[in-house]
Amino acid sequence: MLKVGIVGGTGYTGVELLRILAAHPEAQLQVITSRGEAGTPVAGLFPNLRGHVDLAFSEPNVERLAECDVVFFATPHGVAMESAGELLGRGVRVIDLGADFRLKDVPEWERWYGLEHSRRDLVEEAVYGLPELNRAAIREARLVANPGCHVTTVSLGFLPLVQSGWVDRASLVADSKSGASGAGRKAAVPTLLAEAGESFKAYGVTGHRHLPEIRQTLATAGGAEVGLTFIPHLVPMTRGIEATLYARIDGDAGDLQALFESTYADEPFVDVMPPGSIPETRNVRGANTCQMAVHRPGGGDTVVVLSVLDNLVKGAAGQAVQNMNIMFGLEETAGIDGIALLP
Amino acid sequence: MLKVGIVGGTGYTGVELLRILAAHPEAQLQVITSRGEAGTPVAGLFPNLRGHVDLAFSEPNVERLAECDVVFFATPHGVAMESAGELLGRGVRVIDLGADFRLKDVPEWERWYGLEHSRRDLVEEAVYGLPELNRAAIREARLVANPGCHVTTVSLGFLPLVQSGWVDRASLVADSKSGASGAGRKAAVPTLLAEAGESFKAYGVTGHRHLPEIRQTLATAGGAEVGLTFIPHLVPMTRGIEATLYARIDGDAGDLQALFESTYADEPFVDVMPPGSIPETRNVRGANTCQMAVHRPGGGDTVVVLSVLDNLVKGAAGQAVQNMNIMFGLEETAGIDGIALLP
Amino acid sequence: MLKVGIVGGTGYTGVELLRILAAHPEAQLQVITSRGEAGTPVAGLFPNLRGHVDLAFSEPNVERLAECDVVFFATPHGVAMESAGELLGRGVRVIDLGADFRLKDVPEWERWYGLEHSRRDLVEEAVYGLPELNRAAIREARLVANPGCHVTTVSLGFLPLVQSGWVDRASLVADSKSGASGAGRKAAVPTLLAEAGESFKAYGVTGHRHLPEIRQTLATAGGAEVGLTFIPHLVPMTRGIEATLYARIDGDAGDLQALFESTYADEPFVDVMPPGSIPETRNVRGANTCQMAVHRPGGGDTVVVLSVLDNLVKGAAGQAVQNMNIMFGLEETAGIDGIALLP
Amino acid sequence: MLKVGIVGGTGYTGVELLRILAAHPEAQLQVITSRGEAGTPVAGLFPNLRGHVDLAFSEPNVERLAECDVVFFATPHGVAMESAGELLGRGVRVIDLGADFRLKDVPEWERWYGLEHSRRDLVEEAVYGLPELNRAAIREARLVANPGCHVTTVSLGFLPLVQSGWVDRASLVADSKSGASGAGRKAAVPTLLAEAGESFKAYGVTGHRHLPEIRQTLATAGGAEVGLTFIPHLVPMTRGIEATLYARIDGDAGDLQALFESTYADEPFVDVMPPGSIPETRNVRGANTCQMAVHRPGGGDTVVVLSVLDNLVKGAAGQAVQNMNIMFGLEETAGIDGIALLP
Repeated sequence: MLKVGIVGGTGYTGVELLRILAAHPEAQLQVITSRGEAGTPVAGLFPNLRGHVDLAFSEPNVERLAECDVVFFATPHGVAMESAGELLGRGVRVIDLGADFRLKDVPEWERWYGLEHSRRDLVEEAVYGLPELNRAAIREARLVANPGCHVTTVSLGFLPLVQSGWVDRASLVADSKSGASGAGRKAAVPTLLAEAGESFKAYGVTGHRHLPEIRQTLATAGGAEVGLTFIPHLVPMTRGIEATLYARIDGDAGDLQALFESTYADEPFVDVMPPGSIPETRNVRGANTCQMAVHRPGGGDTVVVLSVLDNLVKGAAGQAVQNMNIMFGLEETAGIDGIALLP
Repeated sequence: MLKVGIVGGTGYTGVELLRILAAHPEAQLQVITSRGEAGTPVAGLFPNLRGHVDLAFSEPNVERLAECDVVFFATPHGVAMESAGELLGRGVRVIDLGADFRLKDVPEWERWYGLEHSRRDLVEEAVYGLPELNRAAIREARLVANPGCHVTTVSLGFLPLVQSGWVDRASLVADSKSGASGAGRKAAVPTLLAEAGESFKAYGVTGHRHLPEIRQTLATAGGAEVGLTFIPHLVPMTRGIEATLYARIDGDAGDLQALFESTYADEPFVDVMPPGSIPETRNVRGANTCQMAVHRPGGGDTVVVLSVLDNLVKGAAGQAVQNMNIMFGLEETAGIDGIALLP
Repeated sequence: MLKVGIVGGTGYTGVELLRILAAHPEAQLQVITSRGEAGTPVAGLFPNLRGHVDLAFSEPNVERLAECDVVFFATPHGVAMESAGELLGRGVRVIDLGADFRLKDVPEWERWYGLEHSRRDLVEEAVYGLPELNRAAIREARLVANPGCHVTTVSLGFLPLVQSGWVDRASLVADSKSGASGAGRKAAVPTLLAEAGESFKAYGVTGHRHLPEIRQTLATAGGAEVGLTFIPHLVPMTRGIEATLYARIDGDAGDLQALFESTYADEPFVDVMPPGSIPETRNVRGANTCQMAVHRPGGGDTVVVLSVLDNLVKGAAGQAVQNMNIMFGLEETAGIDGIALLP
Repeated sequence: MLKVGIVGGTGYTGVELLRILAAHPEAQLQVITSRGEAGTPVAGLFPNLRGHVDLAFSEPNVERLAECDVVFFATPHGVAMESAGELLGRGVRVIDLGADFRLKDVPEWERWYGLEHSRRDLVEEAVYGLPELNRAAIREARLVANPGCHVTTVSLGFLPLVQSGWVDRASLVADSKSGASGAGRKAAVPTLLAEAGESFKAYGVTGHRHLPEIRQTLATAGGAEVGLTFIPHLVPMTRGIEATLYARIDGDAGDLQALFESTYADEPFVDVMPPGSIPETRNVRGANTCQMAVHRPGGGDTVVVLSVLDNLVKGAAGQAVQNMNIMFGLEETAGIDGIALLP
């Protein structure tokens, strides 16, 4: 059994990690830290865990964390870069669900996150944890940067297209829509039910931190820079992301359905649906699956990809556990093969 | 035209007051204060008011408020009791949408609200602003204490029963359900969409501030103390309250439908629906109406009253304007005769 | 007072017409027909209208409709084309909220709607009721084809761009999102709360009837055919549409904000928000306003327009009444100047 | 491995049975029937099952069902009573999630369901499948009548009180609130998102079929008839039931918390929360747990029990599998020990 620690488990990615790890056949939760909730039983804060998790939150403590095989950081940006180094030095492998190690271009990271980065060496070492792109490197990684939720949804949908070279990589459009849990479990007016319920709006139109991350991922995948317009939106629901992706066909293109199916033929968590399908976020609620469909409306020169996932699972905690499974040579699907909760 | 001021207009009762007063044929908004938002155009914070309200929020300023005919306090408890006195002294009439003057029993108020009351004299003077109970006194009032939202829903439903004496007043049960706007427009985790959405729960089970207020109202109406169990609940929606009320018939009872219809025959904002009806909160969304129906399931000895209203209108801002209309001899329905928005 | 009739008033556009017309200062509801609900009081089906509308639904009857000055058809496609002619012949003006007279290209209409059109002459005569494009013609029209809801949202947003010629009209993208009331008030599994709630999906990806209508509208506005990819989506809410529009700048472009502001400077129901704004559907709930903002993310060559409206008001019943006001020389804002219900 | 069949699997209890059974360690889905969907792959109708269930719906066929060890009926009332007998005769054990065998009083059943009952013998034989009340009998049962969702929520909450004799059994009140999935997956106007969303209402006020079933259950548990007022309500959410229960203390009462804890000390799926707790439906979403808390507001003579469960799990499919586990001597928690999905 792997000994597992979690730093900062009071948010939505934290409770989702707990739900998944508590039932994981090869993992044993050892410690979960939270400055604000130290002493509180985990199941007191999250009563869905009553009878499943007996731990209490504890003060951050390197000694206890260092006894783990792997530590997940489910913290705001800026936290993991301060602590990950010491754990790595003591032989612990680290998976950061935050943003500290996602962007290879440190000055760009500093611009978007408004902080000076304290561990450029670790940025260089970190493996970007999108298994469909980086599985081999993840297997060997000490430090994995788990992707953002919009990033996973959008990148998996564009991946076959940018790899194939069939589309104009300079004019991609990603219209992405997220449930409110994406904003985190923190007191804030804009995501109150009475504000975000029964309404729909865009956000981050002038620039969102997931934009450079998607650009980096697609450039890695396609071997060339991409031009991307990315507009995220807030949906009056709790879980789920849907991205509708638009790309212009550039010259000749082959069979899109076959391209997508072959790209993901061996992927356990990417499900290319039959031609004509419409993915719905509810069909992946609570599951680690990204479902997608590819369309060419009216037979024209625009490809439309519809991509859905659960922002807290394949978009965060589930993908983190998938990375853990790969890093430790476990069955990749262990603990994350649950079926989505419908309706 | 009445000159109207609002103190503390950045919450949900504030914006609802603005919506109603901006379209009121006899009222002119003069000033709206907010410490936190002073200088911000009202329509910047609430874009639904673009083109309808040109004011900006201003610092609280007694001089400017004193030029008004009437000032509404849409503030947390403890604010109105500090400022209302001076305005009254300068001839301004005051309607407090908060709780400062609702309970006649000051020690009880202090227990529930955890503050020492600074103006017992004004508590004594204040008229409780439930027009269906106190219309004559409201007409003459300088200071009106506008009722709480659960209180209005529950009290209007029980009123005919406690006045008639047909039921056991010692064992009333009120199971009340409110949308999330009742918790106000303030940063808080429990009313985030991702917390309160897709879920249902009770709250305030060990004691809610509206309990003593309902008890006082029903005691006034029925001429005797009542025994009441009141449990509020949070509904995953923005607006609306539904109360399901239970009372045991005590001895003989007459025609319940006739009782309710005659009690409210002359009331412009209480709508007793036909026998067998089921009120729905959406049928009163945005309107100043309380719709209700009375049932006697299985012909047994329990009376069930179903009562619905919009917590921000008849449960707050609409009722406050109804009180203003009465106080100033205007048509009682002026500015609050809009039709509910369905669906 | 105008005498007004409604054919088919049991759906959501019907009840919204009733809400607006019941409070309209210059209109008098005379008759409202419904085969299925003949004899039912309107306020029995829609209790929000209790005390405001005393009519009952009646069987369709040309004689009674012919006594009206104007008749609204709030019917499925195929109904208005059978009856409008006779009413027109008897001097009644007609506003069709359905699709029968929207597309000038009859064979294209027949392909999308799967019916043979019985009144090509009326198609030719009908004026497309988008006041911002066709006000002068509407003024003289006997027969107005009221636009679709997605169409209004998308077309108003693109209008300044296609008229200016600053963008590539061949590669427009419209990602539109609608609340569930857009699917109408009819028994159907896909729009059950337990299906469409807490989920997000696209629909009509392989082709939606609003596509040719948007294309026609933009071609009329810009004087040239457009190439458009249009993907509608279903949002888990009742009212509102948001469209996020993408266009590539083609050569030089001027000041986008100024373009939008000048285009709509005299429009009472199009509100161009300040630079940097994010429209939200809730800010126009129940109002006849289209709010929009124009962005150029990262200063790149893609223009993004965000456009919101209430699908039942500016997207249907409100715009129909706006057309009525224009046709009869009333104040254009009469009866539709209400403030949106926030929150 | 048990061979399992499902009759009528296209509704919400059907898809939930499929989700649970597909992951059950001791069960093997053999056949799932549906007249309307025969030939359709199950995962085509319910894409959450893609990759987990390979079956297609098939025409009802006794031969194939007779090869199963157990058959679940997830059908409207009236279906199981026609087919269960033959399966029982061929040695198959049957669990009916519908209502056919729930009420022992056949004339009362016929009154509430408007049908003549064709198998009074089976009604007599059937065991009511509430494990907390009938575990021993379920173990031996050939035919189990799985309880209704409101019934389970309300009965488990009242059980300790009626068994203890501490309350007045003649004046119980159950105010129950259910998500919209309780109304089933069938085309209907009242449960459209645009009807049931953003609104709250009671239903079945004049009489609901779960009333006699609760009465029967509590009479069995307490050894005496009960007087109960039961009012169900519709909550704008998909899953979950919350019941707020009111009972008057009759004479002396002991420690309520201790009573509840001892009653359910050995129950794997009833969780009595600590004093002062407030159960929320989201804390049991997708889990087979009933969480409850007992209160005595103000120390008065009214006991308030708050009881929540997931109507599709402990209120339907999960409880049915719990019954299967008991009937076949499996670990009672097998396949239904998943953790609730929060948020």
